[in-house]
Amino acid sequence: MQEFIRSNFFDIKNKIISNNLENIIKNNITDQRVSSIFKISDISSLNYFRENSFLFLENNITLPKKYVTNIVLVTNNNDLFENKKYENIVLVKDLNHVFNIIVNYIFNHDDSLDYFDEFDLINNSYISKNSKIHKTSKISNNCVIGKGVEIGKNCIIKNNVVIKNSILKDNIVICDNSSIGTTGFGFDLKKRGSSNLNPQIGIVIIDDNVHIGSSCTIDRGKIDITSIGKNSMIDNLVHVAHNVIIGQNVCIAAQTGISGSVVIGNNVTIGGKAGFAGHIKIGDNVVVAARSGVTKNIKENSVVAGFPAIDMKEWKKNLIRNRKNGH
Amino acid sequence: MQEFIRSNFFDIKNKIISNNLENIIKNNITDQRVSSIFKISDISSLNYFRENSFLFLENNITLPKKYVTNIVLVTNNNDLFENKKYENIVLVKDLNHVFNIIVNYIFNHDDSLDYFDEFDLINNSYISKNSKIHKTSKISNNCVIGKGVEIGKNCIIKNNVVIKNSILKDNIVICDNSSIGTTGFGFDLKKRGSSNLNPQIGIVIIDDNVHIGSSCTIDRGKIDITSIGKNSMIDNLVHVAHNVIIGQNVCIAAQTGISGSVVIGNNVTIGGKAGFAGHIKIGDNVVVAARSGVTKNIKENSVVAGFPAIDMKEWKKNLIRNRKNGH
Amino acid sequence: MQEFIRSNFFDIKNKIISNNLENIIKNNITDQRVSSIFKISDISSLNYFRENSFLFLENNITLPKKYVTNIVLVTNNNDLFENKKYENIVLVKDLNHVFNIIVNYIFNHDDSLDYFDEFDLINNSYISKNSKIHKTSKISNNCVIGKGVEIGKNCIIKNNVVIKNSILKDNIVICDNSSIGTTGFGFDLKKRGSSNLNPQIGIVIIDDNVHIGSSCTIDRGKIDITSIGKNSMIDNLVHVAHNVIIGQNVCIAAQTGISGSVVIGNNVTIGGKAGFAGHIKIGDNVVVAARSGVTKNIKENSVVAGFPAIDMKEWKKNLIRNRKNGH
Repeated sequence: MQEFIRSNFFDIKNKIISNNLENIIKNNITDQRVSSIFKISDISSLNYFRENSFLFLENNITLPKKYVTNIVLVTNNNDLFENKKYENIVLVKDLNHVFNIIVNYIFNHDDSLDYFDEFDLINNSYISKNSKIHKTSKISNNCVIGKGVEIGKNCIIKNNVVIKNSILKDNIVICDNSSIGTTGFGFDLKKRGSSNLNPQIGIVIIDDNVHIGSSCTIDRGKIDITSIGKNSMIDNLVHVAHNVIIGQNVCIAAQTGISGSVVIGNNVTIGGKAGFAGHIKIGDNVVVAARSGVTKNIKENSVVAGFPAIDMKEWKKNLIRNRKNGH
Repeated sequence: MQEFIRSNFFDIKNKIISNNLENIIKNNITDQRVSSIFKISDISSLNYFRENSFLFLENNITLPKKYVTNIVLVTNNNDLFENKKYENIVLVKDLNHVFNIIVNYIFNHDDSLDYFDEFDLINNSYISKNSKIHKTSKISNNCVIGKGVEIGKNCIIKNNVVIKNSILKDNIVICDNSSIGTTGFGFDLKKRGSSNLNPQIGIVIIDDNVHIGSSCTIDRGKIDITSIGKNSMIDNLVHVAHNVIIGQNVCIAAQTGISGSVVIGNNVTIGGKAGFAGHIKIGDNVVVAARSGVTKNIKENSVVAGFPAIDMKEWKKNLIRNRKNGH
Repeated sequence: MQEFIRSNFFDIKNKIISNNLENIIKNNITDQRVSSIFKISDISSLNYFRENSFLFLENNITLPKKYVTNIVLVTNNNDLFENKKYENIVLVKDLNHVFNIIVNYIFNHDDSLDYFDEFDLINNSYISKNSKIHKTSKISNNCVIGKGVEIGKNCIIKNNVVIKNSILKDNIVICDNSSIGTTGFGFDLKKRGSSNLNPQIGIVIIDDNVHIGSSCTIDRGKIDITSIGKNSMIDNLVHVAHNVIIGQNVCIAAQTGISGSVVIGNNVTIGGKAGFAGHIKIGDNVVVAARSGVTKNIKENSVVAGFPAIDMKEWKKNLIRNRKNGH
């Protein structure tokens, strides 16, 4: 995963002492074993371990060797807690809720009331004093470029574009009225409402030569990143949810929607109005026909169509069989 | 229905004397019986009766007792006119056209050329002098907050958001590039074009703890309200048409579209890219799968999928039967 | 086709001498026969011939008589080159790539880094010094009106609207957060990435009494125009791609997407979430049901539904047959 410094985007308002979590999530702690004492101000994921962080785990998994020590595991998984493989671990009741409380306690983000950013009006756009825009790049009118944002060389940001919590490399075009780095839709269906949504403290990383059309929404990662690989091109009104990883040379036609945590390989071509269920993996060189609803992993070099999407030849045969006169 | 004062949002430019309608819609009047004389400056609906108003009726219905007297009925229904139950009533030829003429004659709205609003540039957004925003709420950059708008406590309005003709209660988040209180799409297919669209003089009411994603469009009511209930949460690029009533704790995934006058119950969960035909009713606790096209009322606690949407188990069975190898 | 002066919108930065093309596209020229010498600063299409221009041709077609002489044909079609009907003709290897190089060499457009426009802040919107807006028309807040744009009488442009590369006639309404005249999605799947997209040097022409909803994207033509005919009305979140020609009195419901070069006749009615494959023709008076995916030409007066869209009665019969209990 591409690294980023979280605090460039999300201010740290409080740190938590590793053995002092009960002050913050009191009723929710069932048990704990925390032997090391250190100050925590970051969040790890299974993709990327950060020092002095919490790592939230649902499943009883074995962490890889690279796992750094200054991490407190927070889990609702009794077996993981009981097997005693890990020394700094807290067992909680409602993991999602505890995630929200801890993240909101440590960080300010743009769904926090006390989030603060300071802007200059430069050439008709509001540019955060804490952003870095290469001098060869061009920002049009009525844009907002938020704190921490980096924009590389020769980028063209058109009008009324909002870019927050994002790193853009070189030669990128973002068309009018698009929103990059917006809040992902992370919820627990049992606890609804704006204040129960998961805080989103990841970013968007867009690699060289990417084109994004008008009125697109690219949500930032929840903890890590949403990313769009080199030379990928996205048409208008496309939705890319949090944690989505789009490979290189991907072409996505208008009004497509990609749900959270989908991974799309390289050289994939996607027709208009396609949709992808969350957490699936699309292999390299796949072609997804317009209007497809992709509900499961698709292996490389496949051509799929329909809903649920299947092999396109199969889809056509079904269509002929099910339509009396074969339209 | 939640009340609102129409003139806070839509200026009254002319009043009409109850027995003087023929000056305004002359050729369109077939017959009339108007015995009371009063000045009219409002529009009633069957949901909400307002004093000194017109009420437009297509069907020969019996009005409820609460019906207030200073109302002139306008109808194209001969039976309703002939049955003489109501004393102030006008029979017209083209009801939709007469609605347009009368409403445009009385009100200025944001599809009128002479609509006027006065803005201050406050913290990089244009805020109407005639809006009320609680001091604990936060408006980001490049927003427009129009006249009459009320925003309660602890709301977060992100960047490039347009809010007009709306009342927002507390703890609401509206994400970047969304438009709230926009003009509904009310048309008569026999008379097309911008100037023949129905003027929309209702508002949007959003209750506590609602989250609305990026690039959403929430159209205001035609006469009454479009409303979103407490704790409901809406993802990106969602369209909510005029007069839609969304209950509490409703969760709507990205790119869903809800047509005019749909009523959605409480605790409903709706997948991405779902669509709803106009004027249908979705019961409490319904689950609508992603990509469903819902064309008729759905009773409470149902789980539906497909287009036209049916019971999800049924839909799956059909799918297996119609796909040779059961994908 | 309605004419427009390209250089009002796209600055000419270089002209090309007709017999000097090899300096610009050197390795790509296979052969050439250019006998006339003139300066080239425009691009023709088969719909509209312009003097002193290049015309790019893939197929071995016979040009109409009206074909003006000061045109250099550029083709990758060997037969067209060999048949010697035309005196000024260049045979190239990669036609799409040569189009990109030539157009980018001649013109600045809003995907060029050196594109320049100069704005005044007038009533809270950025208005190009090189646009013409009739004094009876109203531009709301946070809009951007780009160079060359003409807006006729009595138009209402709401908030946060971007209008570039467009001519709007009279009585037009454009709702909040819409983008008109944006860059079309013209690509060669074999050469992906922002810098390989086709430059788009056409415009949008919107005729009298058109209504366009919120968060719509109307891409400009690639060489010629995207156009919307009189009295047509478009709901929210609709995508209209480059080169689309929409007739008069067309009604398009929300979230519909129309792919490139589609031609839609007069009095067509289109339901929500419909989609159209590129380059097809929809006849007059056609009705397209909501959620249809139209993949081929539809003849006038048809009513179609489904995906791929077929006659609606047929679609309903299929539906009943394929659903055991006939829902």
